[in-house]
Amino acid sequence: MLDSGPTARNSNANSFLRGITVKKIKEIKASGMNVKKFIETKVLEIRRAVSEGQVVNALSGGVDSSVVTAIGHRALGNRLKTYFIDNGIMREGEGAMVAAAFKKLGIEIEVVDASGAFFSALRGITDPEEKREAVTQTFYKDIFGKLVVKSGAKYLLQGTILTDVDETVAGIKRQHNVFEQLGIDPEKAFGYRILEPLVELRKDGVRKVGRGLGLPESIFKRIPFPGPALAARVIGEVTPEKIALVRKATAITEKALKDIKAFQYLAILHEDRVTGMRGNKRIFGNQIEIRCWESLDARTARPTRLSFDVLEGIATKITKEIPEVVSVTYNITSKPTSTIEAV
Amino acid sequence: MLDSGPTARNSNANSFLRGITVKKIKEIKASGMNVKKFIETKVLEIRRAVSEGQVVNALSGGVDSSVVTAIGHRALGNRLKTYFIDNGIMREGEGAMVAAAFKKLGIEIEVVDASGAFFSALRGITDPEEKREAVTQTFYKDIFGKLVVKSGAKYLLQGTILTDVDETVAGIKRQHNVFEQLGIDPEKAFGYRILEPLVELRKDGVRKVGRGLGLPESIFKRIPFPGPALAARVIGEVTPEKIALVRKATAITEKALKDIKAFQYLAILHEDRVTGMRGNKRIFGNQIEIRCWESLDARTARPTRLSFDVLEGIATKITKEIPEVVSVTYNITSKPTSTIEAV
Repeated sequence: MLDSGPTARNSNANSFLRGITVKKIKEIKASGMNVKKFIETKVLEIRRAVSEGQVVNALSGGVDSSVVTAIGHRALGNRLKTYFIDNGIMREGEGAMVAAAFKKLGIEIEVVDASGAFFSALRGITDPEEKREAVTQTFYKDIFGKLVVKSGAKYLLQGTILTDVDETVAGIKRQHNVFEQLGIDPEKAFGYRILEPLVELRKDGVRKVGRGLGLPESIFKRIPFPGPALAARVIGEVTPEKIALVRKATAITEKALKDIKAFQYLAILHEDRVTGMRGNKRIFGNQIEIRCWESLDARTARPTRLSFDVLEGIATKITKEIPEVVSVTYNITSKPTSTIEAV
Repeated sequence: MLDSGPTARNSNANSFLRGITVKKIKEIKASGMNVKKFIETKVLEIRRAVSEGQVVNALSGGVDSSVVTAIGHRALGNRLKTYFIDNGIMREGEGAMVAAAFKKLGIEIEVVDASGAFFSALRGITDPEEKREAVTQTFYKDIFGKLVVKSGAKYLLQGTILTDVDETVAGIKRQHNVFEQLGIDPEKAFGYRILEPLVELRKDGVRKVGRGLGLPESIFKRIPFPGPALAARVIGEVTPEKIALVRKATAITEKALKDIKAFQYLAILHEDRVTGMRGNKRIFGNQIEIRCWESLDARTARPTRLSFDVLEGIATKITKEIPEVVSVTYNITSKPTSTIEAV
């Protein structure tokens, strides 16, 4: 089912919620699902819900947003406007890879360079929570919220999956929050509706649908990446220079570990400076921390017991290719007391 | 031979060096040395050099200063005044261990609590070189230099070994520097002399002499420790709280690795704060970095390929026993580009 969405048509906050039934979402399990039929049904549901309207969505390059973009375009063609917002804190080649993948499917996406806005918002912030908040706020309020309003579209397509819903109050409250995040006052914003065609699925179901839609393996194969992107991989203030550095370290680490069947792996740029040697001179340089996790569900995790050939190989490559870095460490703590990410 | 020392008896800086022959020191190799005869000779040389004078020295607890203290007391008894300066940045139980070892040999040493002076000197300093300089200056000028002057002794006993001399201009220049370090103007300080009975030996020879003098194995067995002590194991400003924390981590690390035949191992407290979990709550905590080196001569080094059982054991013990620490890493870089110590 498509979530029917809020239909607030007056200016009373209580009445916004009044009379709306919060439906319990029925899970569609990946095992035994009919992918072809699922896609056909969703395409028809989207067309029926939107009628002649315009729809807008933001593509991050992650699995969920990629799949919802593909299904939306199959239903609506050019009536779905897809923005890829380059926040300046993505991995090496991320934007190009995503744009190329969709071009191959005949889907045009608009790449919006918003890196300036994100780096401005991040300037001077060192607290991890404030950093995450700055990335989220900039995305929703400053960039995507304005694009939504500017587009004139009243329908918002989102790649919400059942796992996202589990921990929030399902339905209205959550959608109300989306508008608040976008800086759109739901009491004034008559007629906005949210389409969530993947909301009955879990991750494995979404992957099946993605393959059914012809999305390339590159979309599914990359290791998960957190919302605040490389900003979460820098300790202390985030600057374009630090992002460029950790981006290189991330590329080296992901390449070295791509065939390891690990739950998650990452490179973190520390703010601390340590003593090192370059050309027989003592210098103070940066340190990169590598983490590689064994985990089933991210609630607990252990460091992967990588061989020292692999570990020292990563350290050698990073210190060789990134002149600022003189020292590389590997995290040997479990979660808890560590967390998967450092920020 | 005992270094004959400077005999500057006028106030002209040039004439201080004029006419002094810089003697080349002849190495006594550990293999085949007659330890008993060496000790007897040095005892006699010290007695002859000092005659009825008073002698003073500083004992750090390291091998060289321990051996020179023992040989000095054998020669002079109570006419050698030995200070153990507690700088507040030593390892767990270091002062007590050293005092007990010498008490067993019938040697009384005076423990001077100078931790306040060292922490004052370190306050606000984050630059590694300035940190080292603050520790050195406080030791020589503020504490030991004043004790030397106050003691009235004109003879200074030092555990200099041949390796210390190798990279400096031998003889006069070096001893001139010692007085400058102590804040004693050698042009005005008539009659000060330095005794260096171990200056023909390398480390292995010193160990042989130490055993010949009856020093306990505990003096030789502890892993080498740098001059700036635990201040070199804290990134950023050094405070009593941070020293207490890295002292605990150092004790756990040294205990876990004491049977590993490594060149050097250490625990470093980072200034960066990382996200962690305690009692299901997200907190921001400290990170400890472990280093353990394979090396022949400290000029190049590689990380010891410790087992993950050992590595994770250290991380678990540190995060369990030190509530502030949520994350532990292991250094996987070689020297160069890393250095053995981080500060």
